[in-house]
Amino acid sequence: MGSMAFERVTLIGIGLIGSSIARDIKAKGLAGHVTICTRSPETLKRAEELDLGDAYVQSAAEAVNGADLVIVSVPVGASGSVAAEIAPHLKPGSIVTDVGSTKASVIAQMKPHMPDTVHFIPGHPIAGTEKSGPDAGFVGLFKGRWCILTPFEDTNRQALATLKAFWEELGSMVDEMEPLHHDKVLAIVSHLPHLIAYNIVGTAYDLETVTASEVIKYSASGFRDFTRLAASDPTMWRDVCLHNKDAILEMLARFSEDLAYLQRAIRWGEGDKLFDLFTRTRAIRRSIVEAGQDVDAPDFGRHALDPK
Amino acid sequence: MGSMAFERVTLIGIGLIGSSIARDIKAKGLAGHVTICTRSPETLKRAEELDLGDAYVQSAAEAVNGADLVIVSVPVGASGSVAAEIAPHLKPGSIVTDVGSTKASVIAQMKPHMPDTVHFIPGHPIAGTEKSGPDAGFVGLFKGRWCILTPFEDTNRQALATLKAFWEELGSMVDEMEPLHHDKVLAIVSHLPHLIAYNIVGTAYDLETVTASEVIKYSASGFRDFTRLAASDPTMWRDVCLHNKDAILEMLARFSEDLAYLQRAIRWGEGDKLFDLFTRTRAIRRSIVEAGQDVDAPDFGRHALDPK
Repeated sequence: MGSMAFERVTLIGIGLIGSSIARDIKAKGLAGHVTICTRSPETLKRAEELDLGDAYVQSAAEAVNGADLVIVSVPVGASGSVAAEIAPHLKPGSIVTDVGSTKASVIAQMKPHMPDTVHFIPGHPIAGTEKSGPDAGFVGLFKGRWCILTPFEDTNRQALATLKAFWEELGSMVDEMEPLHHDKVLAIVSHLPHLIAYNIVGTAYDLETVTASEVIKYSASGFRDFTRLAASDPTMWRDVCLHNKDAILEMLARFSEDLAYLQRAIRWGEGDKLFDLFTRTRAIRRSIVEAGQDVDAPDFGRHALDPK
Repeated sequence: MGSMAFERVTLIGIGLIGSSIARDIKAKGLAGHVTICTRSPETLKRAEELDLGDAYVQSAAEAVNGADLVIVSVPVGASGSVAAEIAPHLKPGSIVTDVGSTKASVIAQMKPHMPDTVHFIPGHPIAGTEKSGPDAGFVGLFKGRWCILTPFEDTNRQALATLKAFWEELGSMVDEMEPLHHDKVLAIVSHLPHLIAYNIVGTAYDLETVTASEVIKYSASGFRDFTRLAASDPTMWRDVCLHNKDAILEMLARFSEDLAYLQRAIRWGEGDKLFDLFTRTRAIRRSIVEAGQDVDAPDFGRHALDPK
């Protein structure tokens, strides 16, 4: 894929992910014209102030007019209504994709609306931070990260190759996966971690015996790590929980079962069981660092950034 | 406290915490002579190669000879045997402290051995990384972090002031607390987070439906945050779990109860309950950053360090 891969690109939703894509497209010259679309007038205005595209439109129906690539980056619960709104206005031969964290639900919501004349290829870049909104995006968010596409059996191979090349231009490695398998994988690597993080922060805050001020003061001993994920966008994560219900409930059950085993080991003083687990998990951290999916610096390198 | 605060300091245990104290003492000239003691000949040799002190001794009994300040930095399960070993050799008037993550258990193990002629003042600096061993320490680990001391009713005020000033020289803020309250606070801010992190990493690794390689590849979507805590020293954390049993079991029960509530909300599609929690937790993150207990950079500032 050379530069100007697409004549016209439309981004529906301009939060962390949408605005990072916009910045990468501009930085790499991947489109002749970029239309930014969001329902919120304030966010649209902010996107314009940030100079993220070439046109700024509130109506999704209008925004997709003439677009060769449409990327839907909205909370997954809004996928269906966006699909219904844009469907009659999509350009024949265009590619429509999304970045949603759940795939079976997004497909169920969007596919029925998609005309046969367009290439609908669901996607999910595995990248992000806890920040949200158009200001949170940055060039290079997708660099070195995986992007999962979940094409259908009859997906046009050329359109798939074009979308794959687009993500590779953004620095991603691309995998293909079945939607239901994607949803299971993400339930354990992303959805459960967020849920657990939200939960423990809530538990800590609600205690009567330990004050919120104590939790905050002494958070550097482990707790603060969880507060990052627990600061993620509430709307996005509510939608993820509601739209990947089965896989999340399955992983939650496994997690709770394993935790009960640890709890019992603590109650009965079975140090060997604890030691065995605590040793195994160390190796997984090492593999993640070796795979380039996390930095090697102790404490995520926080000390380098700490002004104190 | 000026420089050369202590004529002779002995560090028993020279892992992440002990070796960071040694480096700070040297950097700030806080002792005339530092004796390093550890049972492991390899670790002792490494401490000498790193030039962390002035004398290197395997026997704790021998190491405390003539010391004005003794700092015990060993896994909490080893506190009792260290106390028994050093007790007959402690210099009258000296201060003995520790850095253990649990306080009631350390006191129960150490206090019966301590002669009336020394000032035993238990302590716990709330700082660390997931790395361990003498190479893991660094100057400034305690800077801007809290150190909790749990003195007794009859603790000598002058000795307490001297120990407090020592930690302040290392950049810490010092709090005093009841041992049992310390153990509850740490159970929620540190012990439960580590346990949860170890647990979810184990759960993910043991799944049949999702491979370990998938967990590693896509870990940037949240999971990797937990692998840092789950890479902590297994011996240290086994001991913490066994020696703060009651408080950890109490916090685990609260956590599981809250998680069941979330699980039910997901099953029944109660988005409002999820949204309410996910919104509340965001504010706690903000307070932690404002209190200077975490960096403000998105994603802990990892992108700044990422070589890709």
